[in-house]
Parts: sequence; C-alpha cells; structure tokens
Amino acid sequence: MTECTVGDYLLRRLQEVGVRHVFGVPGDYQLEFLDQIEATEGLSWVGNCNELNAAYAADGYARLNGIGALVTTFSVGELSALNGVGGACAESVPLVSIVGTPATFVMRRRRLVHHTRGDRDFTHAARCAAEYTVGQAMLDRNNAATEIDRLLGLCWLWKRPVYFMLPSDVATQTIDAPSAPLALPSPTSDPTDLAGFIDQARTRLHRAATVAMLVGHEVDRYRLSAEVLELAEALACPVATLSSAKGVFPEQHDLFTGVYSGALSDPAVRRIVEEADCLIAAGTEFADSVTGGFTAHLARSRVIELHPSTATVAGVWHGQVSMRDALRAMTVPPERKTFPRYRPAPASLGSASGPLSQERFWQRLGAFFEPGDVIIAEQGTSYFGSADILLPTDCTFIGQPLWGSIGYTLPALLGTMLAAPDRRHVLLIGDGSFQLTAQELATILRLRLNPVIVLVNNEGYAVERCILGPEAAYNSITPWRYDRLVEAFDPSGRAVTLQVRTEEDLTAALATASADRDRPLFIEAFMQPLDAPSSAVAIGRAFAASDYHRL
Amino acid sequence: MTECTVGDYLLRRLQEVGVRHVFGVPGDYQLEFLDQIEATEGLSWVGNCNELNAAYAADGYARLNGIGALVTTFSVGELSALNGVGGACAESVPLVSIVGTPATFVMRRRRLVHHTRGDRDFTHAARCAAEYTVGQAMLDRNNAATEIDRLLGLCWLWKRPVYFMLPSDVATQTIDAPSAPLALPSPTSDPTDLAGFIDQARTRLHRAATVAMLVGHEVDRYRLSAEVLELAEALACPVATLSSAKGVFPEQHDLFTGVYSGALSDPAVRRIVEEADCLIAAGTEFADSVTGGFTAHLARSRVIELHPSTATVAGVWHGQVSMRDALRAMTVPPERKTFPRYRPAPASLGSASGPLSQERFWQRLGAFFEPGDVIIAEQGTSYFGSADILLPTDCTFIGQPLWGSIGYTLPALLGTMLAAPDRRHVLLIGDGSFQLTAQELATILRLRLNPVIVLVNNEGYAVERCILGPEAAYNSITPWRYDRLVEAFDPSGRAVTLQVRTEEDLTAALATASADRDRPLFIEAFMQPLDAPSSAVAIGRAFAASDYHRL
Repeated sequence: MTECTVGDYLLRRLQEVGVRHVFGVPGDYQLEFLDQIEATEGLSWVGNCNELNAAYAADGYARLNGIGALVTTFSVGELSALNGVGGACAESVPLVSIVGTPATFVMRRRRLVHHTRGDRDFTHAARCAAEYTVGQAMLDRNNAATEIDRLLGLCWLWKRPVYFMLPSDVATQTIDAPSAPLALPSPTSDPTDLAGFIDQARTRLHRAATVAMLVGHEVDRYRLSAEVLELAEALACPVATLSSAKGVFPEQHDLFTGVYSGALSDPAVRRIVEEADCLIAAGTEFADSVTGGFTAHLARSRVIELHPSTATVAGVWHGQVSMRDALRAMTVPPERKTFPRYRPAPASLGSASGPLSQERFWQRLGAFFEPGDVIIAEQGTSYFGSADILLPTDCTFIGQPLWGSIGYTLPALLGTMLAAPDRRHVLLIGDGSFQLTAQELATILRLRLNPVIVLVNNEGYAVERCILGPEAAYNSITPWRYDRLVEAFDPSGRAVTLQVRTEEDLTAALATASADRDRPLFIEAFMQPLDAPSSAVAIGRAFAASDYHRL
Repeated sequence: MTECTVGDYLLRRLQEVGVRHVFGVPGDYQLEFLDQIEATEGLSWVGNCNELNAAYAADGYARLNGIGALVTTFSVGELSALNGVGGACAESVPLVSIVGTPATFVMRRRRLVHHTRGDRDFTHAARCAAEYTVGQAMLDRNNAATEIDRLLGLCWLWKRPVYFMLPSDVATQTIDAPSAPLALPSPTSDPTDLAGFIDQARTRLHRAATVAMLVGHEVDRYRLSAEVLELAEALACPVATLSSAKGVFPEQHDLFTGVYSGALSDPAVRRIVEEADCLIAAGTEFADSVTGGFTAHLARSRVIELHPSTATVAGVWHGQVSMRDALRAMTVPPERKTFPRYRPAPASLGSASGPLSQERFWQRLGAFFEPGDVIIAEQGTSYFGSADILLPTDCTFIGQPLWGSIGYTLPALLGTMLAAPDRRHVLLIGDGSFQLTAQELATILRLRLNPVIVLVNNEGYAVERCILGPEAAYNSITPWRYDRLVEAFDPSGRAVTLQVRTEEDLTAALATASADRDRPLFIEAFMQPLDAPSSAVAIGRAFAASDYHRL
C-alpha cells in the first residue's frame, strides 16, 4: 500500500488506463482537484469553453485513445455535459466523468448552497447521471481506493461512462491505496457456453454455401478489428460494415465489399449481406440510422451474431461468449470455398465546373483523403454523404449515428487531435450543426492544432429539410460570417479560411489543404439550401415515414 | 367542447397563459409540432443556436413575461437543455418544456431508433427531467386535454418547470378539448391556519419596537411586489432586499435601505435587518451566494417568514398560508411608530482617469442606468459588483445566484428582450461566462434587437480566481477578438463595438450608448486578470472556506 491523496490516486489510475488529457470546465467545487491535475506530470488539463463541448471532446479523445476523462462542477456543469455523457453511453465510448461536489460536511448538514435546486437534496444530478453511466460512486476517504478501481474496471469492461462524485474536501484527503497497477477486466467466456457456440457456429459455417461478414461499432470499441481481419482472411469471405463501423475493416482490402445500409446500400452489397447462407454479424446494432430506416432484411436463421460478451447462432442464444473468443474460434483453416465477392469502385468523378452540388461534393472530398486520416463526419448530410466514400488505408471514420446529437463533431475533433497528434484530422460539418458548439474551435486554435475543417454553408438544417419542412423557417439558421468567426477565435492569425462556391474553387482549396499542413484550414463550401446527397434524401424519407407516417 | 389537434390545444393553452414566443431547436421528432407553431397567429418560433441556450432564453423570457416555453427533441435536445431547466426549477421560474419523442408505436414496439441509449428504453431522459420539474406527462389523444391543463396549472401554481413528452404522431391527432379558458390556480390559505398566523403576526408587530422587511425572489415570481410595497408603507418600516430580489422593492423609495448580504452588507443595513425586533422576511431563501457565505444572523424568534403558500412566525409553522393573504393581513393602519431608517447614498464617483478598475467600473455603470432598464448580471464579478448599485425606478435586475450557472445571462437577454421589447436591456458579463453560450448573440442580432452588452475582458474566470488558483492556468481562457465575433454574428453590420481601457474610454462609450439606442452596442472593457470588486473577493473567500477550509 502507498499513502497518497484521493485526488492523486484517481489521477494515477487514470494515467494507468491511458488518460493523458483531462477535459472540462473549472468550478468552485473542484479547484483543488484541478490543482492536482496541473501538478501531475504527463497529464494535461484541457479547459473547454463549456461542459457539453468538454464531454464531446472527451468522447472523441476516448474513441482514439481507448478511454477519456471529464471534470465538471456539481449540477450546473454536469447537467450541461449530460447529453455528451449520454452519447458516450449510447455509442459505447468509455468515459470517466468526475464531478466536484460541495464538501462532505456541507452535504451532510444539508446547507442551502449554490448549484442546488434549493431543496437541500444533493442527489438530483446523480440520479440523472445514473441513467447514462454503468457505475456511480460518491468518493470518501474510506471507499476511494475500492470505488475508483471498481468503476474504472466497469468503464473498461463495458466501454461506457462511469460517474464519480468528488466532494470538494475529499480530493486532498490522504488514504492508503494499493501500489500495484490496476488489473483491467475484459469480457470472458464460460467454457461450456463457448463450446456450445463453437459447435454450432462451425457447423453453420461448414454447411454454408456462401459466407459473409458484417462489422459493427463494438468491434472498434473492443479493439477487435485485427481479429475480424484474421477471421475474414481465413474464411476468404466478403466483409461489409455498417456505417457506424466504417473504416473498422480496411476499405482497400480485397475482401471489403462496401457499407451496408439496408435498402440504401449498393444492390450488390445488399445481395452479399442479405443472401449469405451464413452471415457473421460482429458487434452490430441495427439502429434506424444505419439500416436506411429499418430496411435491413437479415434472416435470423442465417446469422451468427457476436457481441462483446455474448453470442447468438441462428436465433439461439449461447450465453457468456466473448466476441474475442468467438472470432478466434471461427478462425480455423477452412475447406477453402469461394464466395461471391464484390468490390466497390471508387467514384469516377470526371471533371466538372460550376456550382457545387452535395452529390459530387462528398465524392470530391473522398479523393482528398489520404492514408492515416481521421475523418469526423457530423450526423447530417456530412455523415450520410460521406458514408459511401471509399477510404484509403489506416483511416479512422468517426460519426455518432445512434445518439445523433448535432454539434458533436467539432468538440470531438479537439479530442481526436489530442489523442492522435501525428495524424491529419478532417472534420466534415454543416452550418446548422456547427453553430451549436462553434466556440470550441477557439480551443482547437489556442492549442495550435492544425485540422482541416470543411463546413457546408447552406443556411440551415439540411437533413431536417429532407424529413419535413424543406422551406420552413424553423429549418433555417442565422447566417454567420464564418471567416470573421475564425479570426475572432484565432488572435494569432494562423488559420486560413477558404470560401468555395464552384468545382474550381474546391479543387484549388483542396490543393491548398494538401500542400499546407502546418496551419489550421477552414473551408467554407456554399451550397443550395435544398440540395442534399441522395442518401440523406432517402434517410429523410425513411425517418418521415417512421415519425409521421409520411412517405 | 371543441375539436382540435393535440398540438393546437397545447398551443392555445400556452397562449392563454401568456406565451407569445416559443424557444428551441428543431429535431426530427417535433417537426409537425413546429409546423403548428408557425401556423399559429400570435405565436412566434424562436430558433436558438443550441438547446441549453434555448432553455436560458425561455427562462429569461419567463422572468419578465410570467411564463415561458421550450421545445426540444428527444434525449439529445432535452438533455442539452436540462441544466437550463434545472436553473428554472431552482430559481422558481415557470417554464413549459415540450419534448418531441419518437412516435407512440415506435416506443411501444421498442424499436432501436436514433437518439436512444440503444437499450430500447425511452424513459431515461424523462427520469432526468422529473428531477427538475413539478409535473410530467407523456401525451396521447386520451389524456392530452386533462394532462395539458393539469401541468400548466402546476407550472403556474409552483412557478417551476413542467415536462411534456409529445410523441411525433400525437401532435396532429384530433381530440375533443374544453372550449373554456384555463382556470389558473394560485396559492390559497386555510382559513384556520391564516387566522392563527394573523393573530401571532399582528401580536409580534404590535409588540416590536423596531420592524424591518427583507424581500426575497419569491415576491418577484408571485408578482407580489405591490403588496410588499403597500405593507411597507403601512408599517413605514425600512426594507432591504436580498440580491436575489434586487429591484423588487423600488430602490429610490424612501423606505429602501439597501441590499442585505450578511456580513458583506453595508453595516447600517446589517444592523437594521439583524437587529429588528420583528423582521418580515418575504419570499427569502438564504443561500450562501446571497448571504455572504452564510453570514446572515437572523434570530428565528424575531422573524416572520413568508413563502408562497406557507408562513412561520418566530419559528412556529402556521401551515397553509399564502404569501398574498399574509402580506395583506399585516397591511393594517398601524399605530404609527418610527423605526430607524437608513438610505444608501449613491456612490460618489468623482472623476478619475487611467486604467479601469472593477471597483469603480460597476459604480460607473450604475450612473449609466436609466429608469425602466432591464439589467442582467452574470453570476460572477458582474453580479457581485453590481448588486450594490442603486437602481433607478422601475428597473428590473436579473441574476441567477442560487443555481449560478455561468453562461446563463447572454441567452437570457434574448428572452428578456422578446418579453419586453420596449425597454432597454443591459447585459453585464465577463469573458469566461460569455464564451459558454456566445453564439446566442447571433440570434439577438438576427432578430434586430438592440441590447447594450458590457463584457469584461480579463482573460478568465475572475470569481473563481477569488476562490482558488488566482494564477492557475485553469482559470484562464482562450483570448478572443470580440470585435470580430460581433462582425461574424452580424452580417447586416448594425452592431457597434467599443473597446474601453480607461476611465475616459468608458465615459465616451457610455455616452455613445445613451445617445445611440437604435443599434446593438457591445462594449468590451479590458481589466486586469487579478482585479475584482471587493464584494467578489469577499464571497470568494467565503466559498473557499466552505469548500476547502481555506480562509
């Protein structure tokens, strides 16, 4: 055992699990903990403009880094961040949320302090947090070592947020804490369950005339893409991904067949996925937003479905089977069969001139992407427009299709850049979404990061227009002068803003972006309000049908 | 009964209670309801940049208008707004929160739609909302008329938020709804309880050698300032307010004696309040932030404490007694006694030159205020610095001392301006707070409103520096070029930005503001990072003692 303060112990454990940056906003209940963060070597405090942005940034950071951490203040700060924590919960992103609360003796005496509802109840916000976290604790000097280790274990195991209340007087209290490094849990298999699964899965694979794989986001979160690749190569079967796992299987690989989105897929991809005798669905969740509005037709009888700690074969649930074990168990030298394959062709763009259209715009950007890029696509025409772009090798594609909170990506970009500073990061975002969290651009610029930000200026919420109210005033937003905004957030004058209205402008802007990598680049692309990529039009129609019975 | 749609009925009832503007952000689950709003004469949709800003705007609107309304989308939107709803709950602001949810049949079939946690549970966010609202309902065609009337009644009665879930398919469903106007409830008294109170209260008042009144924010929320004034004049007693009720009693009135903040008060005010034989405390909540950190010394045995629907005399609780009845019952022709009085003197500023100091700055602004102004002070040095400024007649002073969520005031300004378009609105805010919600300035400018915004640029969170970490990096923020920001948000170029660094600059800027009322004015006042008004220094010290035992 080692003697240390509660705050320092928490920070030591965070560093052990890989946290190097902590996001948040200061508040008077956690200032001593912030002092501890600033005094910790190897750990940087990243002050955000507001707490929602901080949560989004921590989420983006965690997606590349494996885990992220967020510090906010009691009630006002944590509630502002809650939508961001909810998104991490929905999308399986491990996030450690630490909330500085009033001092223990203040809460015990139920004093009427600021940041409360005025009813002397200090647990309202904690109950909110419990809806979107897999573990919660109020730290004190007696439980701190145990609870910190327990919650970090849960966060790591379930890849979802956990919640610490750290009273203002507790961070500096001294405890005896374990000296040994934290042992991190992983999903394990029950041997009997696993044997039963292997027996059934191998039989299915053996019998199947055609096999295909479909990859979902849990493969990314549990870092199992290498295992998926090995299995695919052993089976020599075609692999599709949901858009929520775009890039998790290398899109330049011979076995990659495309992004599957139900009826919105390329028909060849759809046939391969839906007509396979045996489809291995690894880490997939079939939300409306990634299935073209529930148009995936996958017969349960033909699907082997893998999740982080359970598996189902042809509708039969096999109990406690980890995805890692399941993937490896199927990776056996096969009787080599040849399955029908299909390779998506890169868009043939040709040349064009004149005003930009969304349909061509996203394809043009596809040609701009380079190996190793991190591409972050806002849930709107940016995401739907770029989901079908064929990615170069080693690219990461980040979206938020299940939670779908607009404004997520700009702060998330801050997080991804700090997590992977040696890669190029490209943000694709529309003006409607940008306005929600715009100020975090200032933090990106203050930290001298050099993203490429592509903003579609079409004066409103384009994907909403695809659903309802194409001409409605509520789908229009305030026009901003984005070039001036960049100047406002960038007193050092490092950033370059390029406005593009035509194909020619775009060509020139992308050439500049490719050539000048040592500065932040902001490309403002003007497009027509009613223009949208065909995929967004289609998903809009599907959502309208579901929401309002409109077809 | 009348036949109408659920959405139209809700909108009709909102109009009846006085709503003329609805704030929010569109989302795909409430677009048909937005269509109904846009089709309703006399009701304007105000699209905000994000949901938290929308909630703050609705709160500011409600404070002047009597009630406000907010429309967000399921989970992502409503969670972003939750901190704003929580603030309204804490500060007794009646707010109607309407959330567009997935269609009834989608929720019943537990489909895996976007904006969910991915667990097919549609009630997570509703449980969060229940922590900060006094009534909740999921509307359907059978319960809509009843639940709408019930919740609006609760909102009106308790002056706190209520929460409607409006599934996407329900807004356009037809119902039979009452044609009669909504009967709004008010707190009432139990006759026996009231008689008991009157007996005790009059005895106390009769016996007391000295009487004083202390006014809290509930007097404002229940619109009882006229009753308070009548009582004060009948008793001819001195009246202090908490800073949370600043301006609720006219500060130019002979009986007004100052703002009481415990040990931070003017000593003369403190004596009058704390030494009165009988103190009538009307609608007061003694939070740390309005009592100089719990330094109010008020002997229960000498206090008559009134709340909206209950009263206490010398520590004895009198049950169901409405504040209105209690105030009126004490307003009887008295044996005219003369009580000690004290009139705060307007700050004698003299002239000065050279760099601005916070101590003088707020006093200088005091001289700029005019009768009828609405003054909104951000919870920081702005609030603490301006709490002691003597207000002209008919001014409204708005802060958020109990909830204390920084960033509140800029969107709240949008709301107050729409609620009272004929008054001048002056926002006092620091740069740290401004950055949280800055984009809502664009909405203010789009709507061609003409506020005076005074921003203190001191590169960080000054009030946090008064608590802990005066030199800590976490209390510093990204420097912005605020003049460019105004240009970015104001394509029409109507706004004027003035930068002030000296007393002379400030004199000129305030003269411009007084002369040019037909344009939005943004005054950026540069001050030293470690400068703060003495009241903020003192409250910072009190908070540090409470949070960290530091004195």
